[in-house]
Amino acid sequence: MAGNSFGQLFRITTFGESHGEAIGVIIDGCPSNLDIDMDFIQAELDKRKPGQSKITTQRKESDTVQILSGVFEGKTTGTPIAMIIPNEDQRSKDYSHIKDAYRPSHADYTYDAKYGHRDHRGGGRSSARETAARVAAGAIAKLLLAHNGIEIFGHVSAVGKIDAPHLTLNSVSELLEIRESNIVRCADPATANEMIELIDGIRKEGDTVGGKISCIVKNCPVGLGEPVFDKLHADLGKAMLSINAVHGFDYGSGFEGSEMRGSEHNDLFIPPADGKVSENFKTVTNYSGGIQGGISNGMDITFRVAFKPVATIMQNQQSLDSSGNASNVQGKGRHDPCVVPRAVAIVEAMAALVLADHLLRNRVIRL
Amino acid sequence: MAGNSFGQLFRITTFGESHGEAIGVIIDGCPSNLDIDMDFIQAELDKRKPGQSKITTQRKESDTVQILSGVFEGKTTGTPIAMIIPNEDQRSKDYSHIKDAYRPSHADYTYDAKYGHRDHRGGGRSSARETAARVAAGAIAKLLLAHNGIEIFGHVSAVGKIDAPHLTLNSVSELLEIRESNIVRCADPATANEMIELIDGIRKEGDTVGGKISCIVKNCPVGLGEPVFDKLHADLGKAMLSINAVHGFDYGSGFEGSEMRGSEHNDLFIPPADGKVSENFKTVTNYSGGIQGGISNGMDITFRVAFKPVATIMQNQQSLDSSGNASNVQGKGRHDPCVVPRAVAIVEAMAALVLADHLLRNRVIRL
Amino acid sequence: MAGNSFGQLFRITTFGESHGEAIGVIIDGCPSNLDIDMDFIQAELDKRKPGQSKITTQRKESDTVQILSGVFEGKTTGTPIAMIIPNEDQRSKDYSHIKDAYRPSHADYTYDAKYGHRDHRGGGRSSARETAARVAAGAIAKLLLAHNGIEIFGHVSAVGKIDAPHLTLNSVSELLEIRESNIVRCADPATANEMIELIDGIRKEGDTVGGKISCIVKNCPVGLGEPVFDKLHADLGKAMLSINAVHGFDYGSGFEGSEMRGSEHNDLFIPPADGKVSENFKTVTNYSGGIQGGISNGMDITFRVAFKPVATIMQNQQSLDSSGNASNVQGKGRHDPCVVPRAVAIVEAMAALVLADHLLRNRVIRL
Amino acid sequence: MAGNSFGQLFRITTFGESHGEAIGVIIDGCPSNLDIDMDFIQAELDKRKPGQSKITTQRKESDTVQILSGVFEGKTTGTPIAMIIPNEDQRSKDYSHIKDAYRPSHADYTYDAKYGHRDHRGGGRSSARETAARVAAGAIAKLLLAHNGIEIFGHVSAVGKIDAPHLTLNSVSELLEIRESNIVRCADPATANEMIELIDGIRKEGDTVGGKISCIVKNCPVGLGEPVFDKLHADLGKAMLSINAVHGFDYGSGFEGSEMRGSEHNDLFIPPADGKVSENFKTVTNYSGGIQGGISNGMDITFRVAFKPVATIMQNQQSLDSSGNASNVQGKGRHDPCVVPRAVAIVEAMAALVLADHLLRNRVIRL
Repeated sequence: MAGNSFGQLFRITTFGESHGEAIGVIIDGCPSNLDIDMDFIQAELDKRKPGQSKITTQRKESDTVQILSGVFEGKTTGTPIAMIIPNEDQRSKDYSHIKDAYRPSHADYTYDAKYGHRDHRGGGRSSARETAARVAAGAIAKLLLAHNGIEIFGHVSAVGKIDAPHLTLNSVSELLEIRESNIVRCADPATANEMIELIDGIRKEGDTVGGKISCIVKNCPVGLGEPVFDKLHADLGKAMLSINAVHGFDYGSGFEGSEMRGSEHNDLFIPPADGKVSENFKTVTNYSGGIQGGISNGMDITFRVAFKPVATIMQNQQSLDSSGNASNVQGKGRHDPCVVPRAVAIVEAMAALVLADHLLRNRVIRL
Repeated sequence: MAGNSFGQLFRITTFGESHGEAIGVIIDGCPSNLDIDMDFIQAELDKRKPGQSKITTQRKESDTVQILSGVFEGKTTGTPIAMIIPNEDQRSKDYSHIKDAYRPSHADYTYDAKYGHRDHRGGGRSSARETAARVAAGAIAKLLLAHNGIEIFGHVSAVGKIDAPHLTLNSVSELLEIRESNIVRCADPATANEMIELIDGIRKEGDTVGGKISCIVKNCPVGLGEPVFDKLHADLGKAMLSINAVHGFDYGSGFEGSEMRGSEHNDLFIPPADGKVSENFKTVTNYSGGIQGGISNGMDITFRVAFKPVATIMQNQQSLDSSGNASNVQGKGRHDPCVVPRAVAIVEAMAALVLADHLLRNRVIRL
Repeated sequence: MAGNSFGQLFRITTFGESHGEAIGVIIDGCPSNLDIDMDFIQAELDKRKPGQSKITTQRKESDTVQILSGVFEGKTTGTPIAMIIPNEDQRSKDYSHIKDAYRPSHADYTYDAKYGHRDHRGGGRSSARETAARVAAGAIAKLLLAHNGIEIFGHVSAVGKIDAPHLTLNSVSELLEIRESNIVRCADPATANEMIELIDGIRKEGDTVGGKISCIVKNCPVGLGEPVFDKLHADLGKAMLSINAVHGFDYGSGFEGSEMRGSEHNDLFIPPADGKVSENFKTVTNYSGGIQGGISNGMDITFRVAFKPVATIMQNQQSLDSSGNASNVQGKGRHDPCVVPRAVAIVEAMAALVLADHLLRNRVIRL
Repeated sequence: MAGNSFGQLFRITTFGESHGEAIGVIIDGCPSNLDIDMDFIQAELDKRKPGQSKITTQRKESDTVQILSGVFEGKTTGTPIAMIIPNEDQRSKDYSHIKDAYRPSHADYTYDAKYGHRDHRGGGRSSARETAARVAAGAIAKLLLAHNGIEIFGHVSAVGKIDAPHLTLNSVSELLEIRESNIVRCADPATANEMIELIDGIRKEGDTVGGKISCIVKNCPVGLGEPVFDKLHADLGKAMLSINAVHGFDYGSGFEGSEMRGSEHNDLFIPPADGKVSENFKTVTNYSGGIQGGISNGMDITFRVAFKPVATIMQNQQSLDSSGNASNVQGKGRHDPCVVPRAVAIVEAMAALVLADHLLRNRVIRL
């Protein structure tokens, strides 16, 4: 069973290769009567698109999205929403040199072994270009979440060994303004400058570097998540791990929490001021990351995503061709020295898709 | 849509509450003609069962599994395999004190908010007792994997801040022997002693501590994993994150890999000795953790799972009842000071379920 | 991918063979807080159970159902509901004569060819005994539907060439009373007598006969059904065709409708008495069978199910063994001369499962 | 959960409205290395397209299909295949008169009630135009089946009360030649003439008429079908019932079989000529329609599909607007007097999709 669909009730299916005609996505299950803001969708795509700054790939793609179905007179109709993004800057010849060589730590070898017939141009289906379709679908999920008051904010919290301080408690709109004011998309301006300097230096060396994205979901209602397998954080984890180059995910206290004791880790409840049941019970700390037993508890949902360094480097590397003969590869195309600035939009999109799906799933449970 | 099923082609559905009649699991999709070794299944359950040692809960459950269907004359028939494990030591009265109090960092509050009618005895469905059903199903998945030569080995690689050294290259049977020679299930005997001492001390304080489990899959064939969403590591991640108390997952280089450069992180191919195509292409390093582009590459698959400290502590904690009134809770039942020694069997079981599913999914792809 | 689950949001998975330990079913997705009436569930099973009358098999099964999980203090908790029905009267020796012979028009040959290892006792998984699990699950679906005012009524509308007249417009409770007053479960008493006489004669000849069940769903809300593939009648059709011995399904005007003209077949709307929008728009005729474009329109949903004659006859038949040698088989067990009287409960159960599923699916669509 | 996907392993998702930009389909799960014959795909679409003859609608659509992904150098790559068919002849103004009127026996009322926001142009998503996407996907399924030697043949076996005689035992290619030699697509030339005369007369009256399509699948291997719910005929039934205007489905002996006795209905085995196990065991009769216990037995698979008369007639009909006021509607667009000649391609396509899916599902079962 092929794995190009994600979600149960708000379900997307993506298609398309890096250098084919177009990439795209079908959303099946979006509720009807949702207002579609095309400018917002395009703005989301612009955050992921190549060529934004000196620290991203210089491939030129306008990533202009077109809606083919499911929207009528500016509103969703409840039928499948098909969106396509034509591929424009398809310099396939950039890739002819790797037709017969497996790039190290890429998917060339595994795709060839699995399928036996591979579109080698730019990685074909394994290219991160596919994630543009996710961002388009995620933008519609965000519109649905916004309709329900839910906000998502991600930013670059680490590049290599440079870590940003924990987020201060600004509003999402304030955080967004800070983040978008620098090309690395870190919500701490001082750290952002350090990160940019690091990436630019690494780029000049023809090398790449990894990083981390931290994400927060605000105003999530209590009750999202379907035990025991489709726990909210399990679906978030799968969503993040399905993004190209992601090697790790944790939420709440995460890996650090595994070094703690229960007496310090437990999130104690705050008694409601008036001694009565408020809408949500709050906790003093939030090591649970907004999720307990796989179900959202109304506190902020927090998680981190770790990205490995981009595998394509501008340095000469030893490799093999499909016959097992030694060959050399060296990146000639237009590649990112660090993927995380552009990946913020992808992380937010996948989080939005998970939350939209669970929002719909949660509505059917209780008599 | 409720979330009590896992897998697509080797698909399990678990049921049961901590203090109900029984827990159990249905496997739909297990191939026919697989020899079922009941002793092996029971031995796997024994590694997870309570009351094994001084550092586990003293709840008494024999966890005796019974197969109701799908097996005839010792072999699977291709029809659904139903397995049940009766609950024996159901001291429900241990929990009457929490009927009206939400235990901190437990699922009491979220289940009540979501479902509005909760089996509060021992956590009900949110109890880790449910994982016994996963271990039973995982044992059958392991038999299927063994039939295909695939081996899985997990061990406790950290308790609190105590880390075990990286595994040396023993065989899985040797590693298993070392691991099972100590009650904390660490494959390094010296570290095991430190861990046991730490846990025992914490237990005496009425506190708990988190830890990590590292897992390796050997002899996985090339080609498992279904891009772009059902990447092998994404499904492993979801599987692990669905286990009670898990807060983090990474594979291969993981979180550390996000601090590295591409030039050091890329796994270079080893030219085949005879200059010809061997069955699998090997790599010098394995930062990819045996998976590239979401598809296994034939190298060892490696991943880590981080567990938070158990929330139930034997210390007095402030809480709230369902009306928002302050109340106190203190663990009175029989609980684990550290969950990881018993969780090794669960991690292996979930890994086996993911691999069995992808083994079946992979067979249908290529003409 | 094995096919032992049915439904998306109200999802059942059945297990069990005719002569194994037990059969059973898991319901995943039943809303919480539903009152569970065990007497009602058992009464539904009693309508399907063997040994009811002279025109059914004399196998003795009390078909006593036990709930293992998902219900607490008489209400559903939103967790999986596991139900088991032990097999009691397992005269496996009745089947030793067919261990090596394929009964004509049974599933013996196809199961053997597909799985290569078959539980031959009483047909194993292919036995209609599996449908008892469906009836148990369907009873809970009926409780959910009753909570929403929806009623289902099926009856035997044909045995062999004997057809019952169209149902008169009694209430479901009146129809039920008439139907249950005769052992063939036809809502027309005069026809019922003819049918019973026919079946009894055929039984004495050691032969069997087919028949039809007609079913009506009353008070179905407008809007159930998910185009374009999960149309309400398409899911009803699949549900019915999945029942043992069913060879045909139609709804509304059905096969007869294909002989009509549009000008006579179209269901004209009845203008609301007061000229204003009423809750549902009614139509003069109901050739649409309560479903238009795959979505319920608020009129009665009507459909028919055609059952072939039971394949096991008490006459000597030529057959083959698994080596292709000619052999003879003759029914020795306890079999039904006509399956439709007992199948009414199965048809209603499957209809209830489809409607419960679509009721839950419909709730998430519209903003 | 929206219902725009069909199949498990060979899974399609369709999108698009009658008068939007385009309709299309994504196939996820098609094996790699399948040769794609674009001429064949287009020829299949041409059999369904409007404007073929005097007895079909005169809407002009070239129905030119374009593949956007999943095919490289003429072969499938194992990644999703996206196909789009632009809408060309969108005379939306033809439908302005029904913006506020619900056409009798159409989906206008139910879509409006369900979604609350409807693309009323030409029926929007409820239009049979969506089936062009199915035919495109079905053509690729047919290529996969042909690769496995499986053939599908459907033809118009009834129009109104005119029935064609049973098919004689020609080869599929001979049957195809006869069928395509007449515009009603009946494999019996004499009956075809009667049918055409009937339809043409009805068309002149501004009326419509229903009909039936009979279909046969040859060379299906033994073993396809997944009990107990995903029986081969149950999935075929759902597939057919999901086609616009279909009101009934039966297979093998079908509705007529329900009037028969077991002793005449049972399909006796033919002893293999040499007394040894041949590949498939054949039967004397084929009342089982090639499927026993939900699993193909190697005999021809036979089924029938009943279509109601098209609801849009050129006569004046009383209706209601969305406010419940009486209004009149009269078809002004370009509509079919009888849908079955064009629906043959759709029936075959859906059958191909079901068989391709089950072919892939069957490969994973047996050790």
